[in-house]
Amino acid sequence: MKKVYVLLADGFEVIEALAPVDIMRRAGIEVITLSLNNNLEVMSSHNIKVMADKIFDGEFKDGDGIYFPGGYPGYENLLKSQKAMELGKYYLENNKLVGAICGAPSSLARAGVIDGKNITLHFGCYDLVGDKCNIIDKPIVVDGNLITGSGAGYSVDMGLALVNYLVPEKVADVKKALTIKD
Amino acid sequence: MKKVYVLLADGFEVIEALAPVDIMRRAGIEVITLSLNNNLEVMSSHNIKVMADKIFDGEFKDGDGIYFPGGYPGYENLLKSQKAMELGKYYLENNKLVGAICGAPSSLARAGVIDGKNITLHFGCYDLVGDKCNIIDKPIVVDGNLITGSGAGYSVDMGLALVNYLVPEKVADVKKALTIKD
Repeated sequence: MKKVYVLLADGFEVIEALAPVDIMRRAGIEVITLSLNNNLEVMSSHNIKVMADKIFDGEFKDGDGIYFPGGYPGYENLLKSQKAMELGKYYLENNKLVGAICGAPSSLARAGVIDGKNITLHFGCYDLVGDKCNIIDKPIVVDGNLITGSGAGYSVDMGLALVNYLVPEKVADVKKALTIKD
Repeated sequence: MKKVYVLLADGFEVIEALAPVDIMRRAGIEVITLSLNNNLEVMSSHNIKVMADKIFDGEFKDGDGIYFPGGYPGYENLLKSQKAMELGKYYLENNKLVGAICGAPSSLARAGVIDGKNITLHFGCYDLVGDKCNIIDKPIVVDGNLITGSGAGYSVDMGLALVNYLVPEKVADVKKALTIKD
């Protein structure tokens, strides 16, 4: 079974975080949400309190992928966590999946994790990236093992893109269950 | 300020529930999530524990709208709550907004709340509705003050449809913030 860690910092965008969690679990992926707080409670950017599965206090290098949701100030809180950024770098360099959406690609870019990569992100964060990455104005951009999304409106697409990378044979069934027609 | 109640029963679909909560809050709507349990903790159909804002133990007739997410067994748990079904009926009959998605329209149909209405819902629940309603195979169906959605893949569309009903002047700004282009 594939395993993906999802990092939840206070101020995370709830759609961006949980649509992919839900969709990956529907595809049979083991998804473990990690709280960057000292307890399991994490508060979303629009005041929804969610209980994470574990506290982010270990190595967590055994996953097949890691996912960084956006949301303000969630993506700034991700950037403040040196351990989170180092884990992103570890996953990217070890050919494991890295997903990031909305403001979160700017966190990875500012931490020097995704230099020179093709990415998309929220237009409000373009300036934070500058020329560190090649920004493409699309909802979802796949560059090898890095998948980025522009914002909350494409959270379902992001979930499906992550599933498509890890267990492509599951995409059709998951889309059907979500009532999505091509 | 408009006010909407969102009913959360164990087994609710997290995207269907929280994408509309998030999107309505972005539009300046006061959204209050109500736990059908005896405490604030509610567990989603894919094992995400969320803390609701209040326990569903009052009247809650003062809102401008009420929203019923799907998810299994969440929509069955909604149906089991006579008070939830009665509140849906009160909102519908008093020209307040009623939203329901996925399996939840079947709960309202089986409770006799939406007889003869044009609705959409998850294809897996068509048989539960039978000829009580006029089922239309579309992602979102608006019939007066009743808005229904087919499933989790259209949770963002549902959120936007609810915003469009209550505060249409906010739709463009919210879509932009979600990075959705027409």
